[in-house]
Amino acid sequence: MALKGLRQMEPYIPGAQPKDADMIKLNTNENAYPPSPAVARALEEFAVSGLARYSSLDQSPLKEALAHQLGVSKEQLIIGNGSDDILSLAFLAFFNSEDPVLFPDLTYGFYKVWADLYQVPFKEIPLADDFSIDFEDYNQVNGGIIIANPNAPTGFGKSLDALEEFLNAHEDVVVIVDEAYVNFGGQTAIPLLKSYPNLFITRTFSKDASLAGLRVGYGIGHPDLIQVMQAVKDSVNPYSVDSLAESLATAAVKDWEYYRDTCMRTMATRDAFSKGLEALGFTVLDSQTNFVLAKPNHCSAKALFDHLESRHIYVRYFPKSERIKEYLRISIGTDQEMATVLEAMKETLTDD
Amino acid sequence: MALKGLRQMEPYIPGAQPKDADMIKLNTNENAYPPSPAVARALEEFAVSGLARYSSLDQSPLKEALAHQLGVSKEQLIIGNGSDDILSLAFLAFFNSEDPVLFPDLTYGFYKVWADLYQVPFKEIPLADDFSIDFEDYNQVNGGIIIANPNAPTGFGKSLDALEEFLNAHEDVVVIVDEAYVNFGGQTAIPLLKSYPNLFITRTFSKDASLAGLRVGYGIGHPDLIQVMQAVKDSVNPYSVDSLAESLATAAVKDWEYYRDTCMRTMATRDAFSKGLEALGFTVLDSQTNFVLAKPNHCSAKALFDHLESRHIYVRYFPKSERIKEYLRISIGTDQEMATVLEAMKETLTDD
Repeated sequence: MALKGLRQMEPYIPGAQPKDADMIKLNTNENAYPPSPAVARALEEFAVSGLARYSSLDQSPLKEALAHQLGVSKEQLIIGNGSDDILSLAFLAFFNSEDPVLFPDLTYGFYKVWADLYQVPFKEIPLADDFSIDFEDYNQVNGGIIIANPNAPTGFGKSLDALEEFLNAHEDVVVIVDEAYVNFGGQTAIPLLKSYPNLFITRTFSKDASLAGLRVGYGIGHPDLIQVMQAVKDSVNPYSVDSLAESLATAAVKDWEYYRDTCMRTMATRDAFSKGLEALGFTVLDSQTNFVLAKPNHCSAKALFDHLESRHIYVRYFPKSERIKEYLRISIGTDQEMATVLEAMKETLTDD
Repeated sequence: MALKGLRQMEPYIPGAQPKDADMIKLNTNENAYPPSPAVARALEEFAVSGLARYSSLDQSPLKEALAHQLGVSKEQLIIGNGSDDILSLAFLAFFNSEDPVLFPDLTYGFYKVWADLYQVPFKEIPLADDFSIDFEDYNQVNGGIIIANPNAPTGFGKSLDALEEFLNAHEDVVVIVDEAYVNFGGQTAIPLLKSYPNLFITRTFSKDASLAGLRVGYGIGHPDLIQVMQAVKDSVNPYSVDSLAESLATAAVKDWEYYRDTCMRTMATRDAFSKGLEALGFTVLDSQTNFVLAKPNHCSAKALFDHLESRHIYVRYFPKSERIKEYLRISIGTDQEMATVLEAMKETLTDD
């Protein structure tokens, strides 16, 4: 179609959304456990008539619950439609200089997508050979930095001390720390907010809170950063958090003991699964998330991916990524699911 | 705060969100009636455990229901987080030329906000003296056009014939017709989709479907336009429609008879209220929406606004808009609410 003004863009080919009744779905790092019973109660008690009114612009009850949970003030918080929304707005709000925004070459794939979309100059900094982020490599002129901590798809996290030194070295730009997976064993940067007004942390309800289908995420930062981002949000889609999502997310935060427990269970399952993979001869990266990145040494990642798929087990395979094309990223399900996965993997050992 | 890359933006001052228990809220064009009983049932039947999984990328059941209702194909539809989301994406997807995008000087205020945010050149075309859109005025070089039909805050609609002639004159650019209010008496442009692949229509569930708090909107257009927009959507926030919103919106579409009835009731109330205002000496614009724009002739808009507010009746007042600063925009509530409003207005006649 030839119309003046039409954006030239490659159509996006979404990943498969398998729907077999008996599948084990370990390809998008969803939580193995259902949302807390408090969320179910909030859903039951929600009055449908209220939906005729617009949702709130400020999500005040959710911010209060989060402020209490995290030890920050309401003015340090902004709520959005998933952390994808928060991150997308952050690119518009914080990355407007001529200098390149820096992020790792292997990290959440969307950083590059937003930079492309909003024409933000950027530079991908290769991870070290051991897949860790070497903060020394970021000592160059830049227009902002974004890292995931722990990083995906490696699962590696950074210590609070390392983060502080890093923030110290980049006080003239906004540094975004994407903490989507932090509650599976990572170290949060929240204690650094007091000293570093240029720090902006993003979080999601999609991983630790078992609410990927609800689309709620948030940002934490200095009130001045929040105010700029709020102005951008109010210029894009001010009501992006719906009333049901706000109500259920608030219930989740207020019942965080439940989630502390499910996160602990996921971490225990992950560590046992990693040992199981090592026993099968896999190379396994040490994960602080709800997934592991692992390399089979007895067959190709492709062969293993196909075999698992034939057993209705869905994991993530990165054939286009040179550095990890022989790895699979496997989300952590329940103990029983991961036992089934290990059994299916053993079949590829004996098949040879 | 001085950080490299930080966007310079005026903080947005949101309108008041009054919360008096006894208020009559007629300031944001919400629907006076609750969502359909089918929506309430869908909420009751929703399984909370499903929220641990990501929402769908394509909203296939909702598209099927809409395709059936509207007489279009699924490939002509895209679903978003409210029509604000759809319109914001449309500016990114369709308005990328050097020539100015045209829209009326008095229309939905967000068109200018998105143009500013995404640095899209634009030109506001003054409405005629009678507040109608004169399509002749759009015969100039442009990079796309967006109009609301019916327009807000005037309430005036355009006929299908006039729209067709207009599309004929602008076949080289995308023409967006924002039909947020169309089901309160306007004429939809849907029959023109067959002949005009450059036509893009936007709709919302916030007005006719009584679901402002749910955040669902959609676009209708040629599959080639939809594909470009889908690529943009997938680069901004692919999961923006949550699972609950999709499920409830689908139930609403399948029970559209209910909404046909509530829309008819709103239109009858509107026409009676307009007559009531005229009997009080107001100038009232002929509305095809769920609001009226009206000018008191016995006192200033400000005096009337303040008096209504003192009675906990909230309407919209535009002090910064030179052309309509002596008008009030009043959403249509129930018959009883509008009778109360007329009574409160009479007090300002006798007070003098």
